[in-house]
Amino acid sequence: MRIARFTVADQIAYGVVDGDLDDGASLTVNAIDGHPFAPFKRTSARLAMSDVRLLPPVLPNKVIGIGKNYVDHAREMGGEAPTTPVMFLKPSTSVIGPGESVVLPEQSQQVEFEGEIAVVIGRLARDVPPERVDDVILGYTCANDVTARDLQRSDRQWTRAKGFDSFCPLGPWISTDVDPGGLSVQTEVNGDIRQSAPASAMVHSITDLVVFVSSVMTLIPGDVILTGTPAGVGALRDGDRVSVIVAGVGRLDHTVRVAG
Amino acid sequence: MRIARFTVADQIAYGVVDGDLDDGASLTVNAIDGHPFAPFKRTSARLAMSDVRLLPPVLPNKVIGIGKNYVDHAREMGGEAPTTPVMFLKPSTSVIGPGESVVLPEQSQQVEFEGEIAVVIGRLARDVPPERVDDVILGYTCANDVTARDLQRSDRQWTRAKGFDSFCPLGPWISTDVDPGGLSVQTEVNGDIRQSAPASAMVHSITDLVVFVSSVMTLIPGDVILTGTPAGVGALRDGDRVSVIVAGVGRLDHTVRVAG
Repeated sequence: MRIARFTVADQIAYGVVDGDLDDGASLTVNAIDGHPFAPFKRTSARLAMSDVRLLPPVLPNKVIGIGKNYVDHAREMGGEAPTTPVMFLKPSTSVIGPGESVVLPEQSQQVEFEGEIAVVIGRLARDVPPERVDDVILGYTCANDVTARDLQRSDRQWTRAKGFDSFCPLGPWISTDVDPGGLSVQTEVNGDIRQSAPASAMVHSITDLVVFVSSVMTLIPGDVILTGTPAGVGALRDGDRVSVIVAGVGRLDHTVRVAG
Repeated sequence: MRIARFTVADQIAYGVVDGDLDDGASLTVNAIDGHPFAPFKRTSARLAMSDVRLLPPVLPNKVIGIGKNYVDHAREMGGEAPTTPVMFLKPSTSVIGPGESVVLPEQSQQVEFEGEIAVVIGRLARDVPPERVDDVILGYTCANDVTARDLQRSDRQWTRAKGFDSFCPLGPWISTDVDPGGLSVQTEVNGDIRQSAPASAMVHSITDLVVFVSSVMTLIPGDVILTGTPAGVGALRDGDRVSVIVAGVGRLDHTVRVAG
């Protein structure tokens, strides 16, 4: 099932996306009664995808990022993949939805894309054992962990570099009932494929990441874990069109513009 | 004015704390009708402080920390104070209230206290100019930016070291109408003074910090900025009683215990 958050006629709602992903014109959104983090019912309201505006599929309390989780990306950054996952946080104010623009801030001269598979937590979760990880995951979506590479280097701490408003495009929806081991992520900029890797190439698997993060901090419904980016990161420029595609989940499109 | 968040008979409410801070028995809480981030009225309900349980005075969306903002602390960490403030984020799930316990996690052998002055944001704030900073601050409280020093060193990124559940004691209340330049912070462990410094010793002033942070990320009501810790940080052990005192604001007491 694919669960979207959307707005239509100034109302915000959640809905189930039906139709063929390869045929955009066939997609509809069936509004639900309730909240996706609890049992819900479909309503009789069904809208064409073209009549709604998709929002970030969740408003996370926490966005937890994982650094250098693909060996080839760790190497392009000039290092090795760490044996313990390296965590960072992106503020919730950095989240934008499908079709919105990443805004290049004046403080940086080198803003880069990092396409990633995002995990959406569905339940309160603390010290989750590996065999219970599937139970606390609601589903998966696509994310761009946008990073000001120059500030990441100069600050050493990554919070500013990854924390600007608009630096976390997320969407287009949450896909549930997905086998995480079979996922892959691809990033396109202006139609050119720039990153492409299977989840199986992660240093720390999605299961390992949920176990690790929840051994430190309680996860709450709607929290998002960004699982790291593969090799191929590169600069974003004014006017770029970016797509992060997670096969079997969906395609997140967004644009890029300069501040002001 | 001092604004507390408290629970009594399973109800959560905000209230104004009246009385003499030097005479705990004189303190009362006058419940308010409304929310402290908007105009509110006092109700007729007045309770003795001893009859309520104080909660963290705010549930922040973001807790933004600032590293090495006192020269003497930067030196005791083996470095210099940075010319640009170094930001990090603590998750909201790390916040605990007065009288609660910091829980020492098994992952660390060296958990340390960092007493700090905390700024509570009162309005939506983005790119705040210096002359408008006072307008976006609701008030001040006390915080302990608890840090697993060993993990801070080994991870390089500070998120895990500062992000464990319970690693952000906050309170006891928000003091408004305070001159931030006149504040000072003191930390006591088991009655011994371990840290003491005036806000005037900060490398980057509170005004500068709000300008800087809001140039990166939109601040929303309830967000908290931890303004850095002075020299004197040290280890916390099972059973320790910790107090962070901000003169003119209040005194945050909490305990420490091992996990499990």
